[in-house]
Amino acid sequence: MSADPTPGPEGSTLSEPVTISKIAEAAGVSVPTVSKVLNGRADVASQTRARVEELIRRHGYRRRRGPGGGRSSMIDLVFHELDSAWAIEVIRGVENVARAEGLSVVLTESGGEQTPREAWVDAVLARQSTAAILVFSDLAPEQRARLAARDIPFVVVDPAGDPGPDMPAVGSANWNGGLAATRHLIELGHRRIGVIGGPRPVLCSKARIDGYTSALDAAGIEVDPALIRYGDFHVESGRDRGRELLRLDDPPTAIFAGSDLQAMGLYEAARELGVRIPEDLSVVGYDDLPVARWVGPPLTTVRQPLTEMAEEATRMALALARGERPANLRLDLATDLVVRRSTAAPAAR
Amino acid sequence: MSADPTPGPEGSTLSEPVTISKIAEAAGVSVPTVSKVLNGRADVASQTRARVEELIRRHGYRRRRGPGGGRSSMIDLVFHELDSAWAIEVIRGVENVARAEGLSVVLTESGGEQTPREAWVDAVLARQSTAAILVFSDLAPEQRARLAARDIPFVVVDPAGDPGPDMPAVGSANWNGGLAATRHLIELGHRRIGVIGGPRPVLCSKARIDGYTSALDAAGIEVDPALIRYGDFHVESGRDRGRELLRLDDPPTAIFAGSDLQAMGLYEAARELGVRIPEDLSVVGYDDLPVARWVGPPLTTVRQPLTEMAEEATRMALALARGERPANLRLDLATDLVVRRSTAAPAAR
Repeated sequence: MSADPTPGPEGSTLSEPVTISKIAEAAGVSVPTVSKVLNGRADVASQTRARVEELIRRHGYRRRRGPGGGRSSMIDLVFHELDSAWAIEVIRGVENVARAEGLSVVLTESGGEQTPREAWVDAVLARQSTAAILVFSDLAPEQRARLAARDIPFVVVDPAGDPGPDMPAVGSANWNGGLAATRHLIELGHRRIGVIGGPRPVLCSKARIDGYTSALDAAGIEVDPALIRYGDFHVESGRDRGRELLRLDDPPTAIFAGSDLQAMGLYEAARELGVRIPEDLSVVGYDDLPVARWVGPPLTTVRQPLTEMAEEATRMALALARGERPANLRLDLATDLVVRRSTAAPAAR
Repeated sequence: MSADPTPGPEGSTLSEPVTISKIAEAAGVSVPTVSKVLNGRADVASQTRARVEELIRRHGYRRRRGPGGGRSSMIDLVFHELDSAWAIEVIRGVENVARAEGLSVVLTESGGEQTPREAWVDAVLARQSTAAILVFSDLAPEQRARLAARDIPFVVVDPAGDPGPDMPAVGSANWNGGLAATRHLIELGHRRIGVIGGPRPVLCSKARIDGYTSALDAAGIEVDPALIRYGDFHVESGRDRGRELLRLDDPPTAIFAGSDLQAMGLYEAARELGVRIPEDLSVVGYDDLPVARWVGPPLTTVRQPLTEMAEEATRMALALARGERPANLRLDLATDLVVRRSTAAPAAR
């Protein structure tokens, strides 16, 4: 929450507006061609488009807004996949802020890819969206440049990779969450504690596992690499990695499941193998989806404020669209541990 | 699945195209004013707009499509509320079909109202959406007329009220679902069977409760009005109505919970009161959301194919947008009972 001054984009010449005809001249094309590029029309040769966009970007051309604002009243929301209870929490946050501002939300699923397809950028430019919110996905440098050239700001929610300091993003305190989950298990008396992370390269998962190892280190417990497994945040991987952990010769007495959905899979694995929760195995999830309260036993988990994160990202994107410069372009909202009934002291052996 | 011939809209004059200037003349306004109305612009007096729209409707004016189709590549999706795991199943279905057709999905929540606000219709007309999908909500007659006049088809998914035979809609076999759930409990040996419906006026809830009473009738079990309660399909009402039923002097040994979320609330009420599932109480849900598999014990429920319903509705809307007339404008997809571990024979008393 510090108010660091944020540096402006390098090389931008905001004080020196350029006209469309100057860009057309520099690119060696007609004014209507530049207009087509600005309007995201598809009927421009890709080389020509790239040349014009590069000039637009280099000269910091800013579209003049018409009397009605000149922009459509839409905001784009992109998911890399739209397949869990997780997504609805995020959609609700974006929808809350958009509705209050009279904006409609255009929803896109990038079909499991971490980077939206090129056609998505074309569509966003064509509809002149006010801003774009990307969930757990990333833009290719060329896609960023195209949106930036047309003055369409974007904010990433819960970034998968390292978005870099100039990439606006709202996340949550993943490291602290991993630390709190593991510390809770240590305080209950557990010493053999397993963890199931998300996909290896995903930043939020790395941070949660680092929080886990730091808690063990601080308690003087040696980290056993056999107890660290990687899933994909979904139910099935929680079940599969959970089975592996529970079938070890010296199985863990507690597992930090990395996500609530992985915890659901772990519950399934435990049921199959006759392992009782929390008597034989303590489980901590991550997210605090509504389901965490309903399962038996109700799940101890790290609350990640998904709806608030999405609201914050949308507010940030709209501020950028109005030409404001928020004090911070990277925010992590706090996580906290919610203790329910899936964790207990380990049974005496 | 019968191929009944469907009647055309009464009084339409599809074979006799009218021009904008004829409509302007009849309305006593200028041609640009008619254009503004057609484009959904807000800067037209509401009386004028109503008069022009009435003429557009009466004369069956159809916008000529430009060479590129003349329509934006968007489809509108409206929820009356966007607050449960239920919604993501529907969003995924619409998104699946839209993505395959290269369309973007514009998502709106009507803020708990069963009828979207007037501003929503303005926005749909302004962006010239290809079609609109309404989930569990309804349009006012005036709203229907405005969309119809502009040739924007709409389809309702799981209608809340009785949409009438001319209103395209995709639902599920709710009555059969209620029947199957209750019959399953009767076959297990239960005689005191409670039910928690949705809101009283909602059609799908009425149908489920009618299926319940029909199953009791068929088995010669008298219907006890004290065992019929009404919720709102959400967790809290399942918990509250569940508590009431479980605290009766002669409580039911089985409850058909009307929705999976209400079943989750009933699980909570049972836990609070020390009632074991399925030993003391059998529970059947409705929907088969992913959560049904994860709870303890896994929930016996009626599977409602939400994603397929949404896909079917989207396909129907796009067929209507292309000017086709589907053989059936009302479809109910089949429901089926999924037996898991929350139901068992009643304990001997």
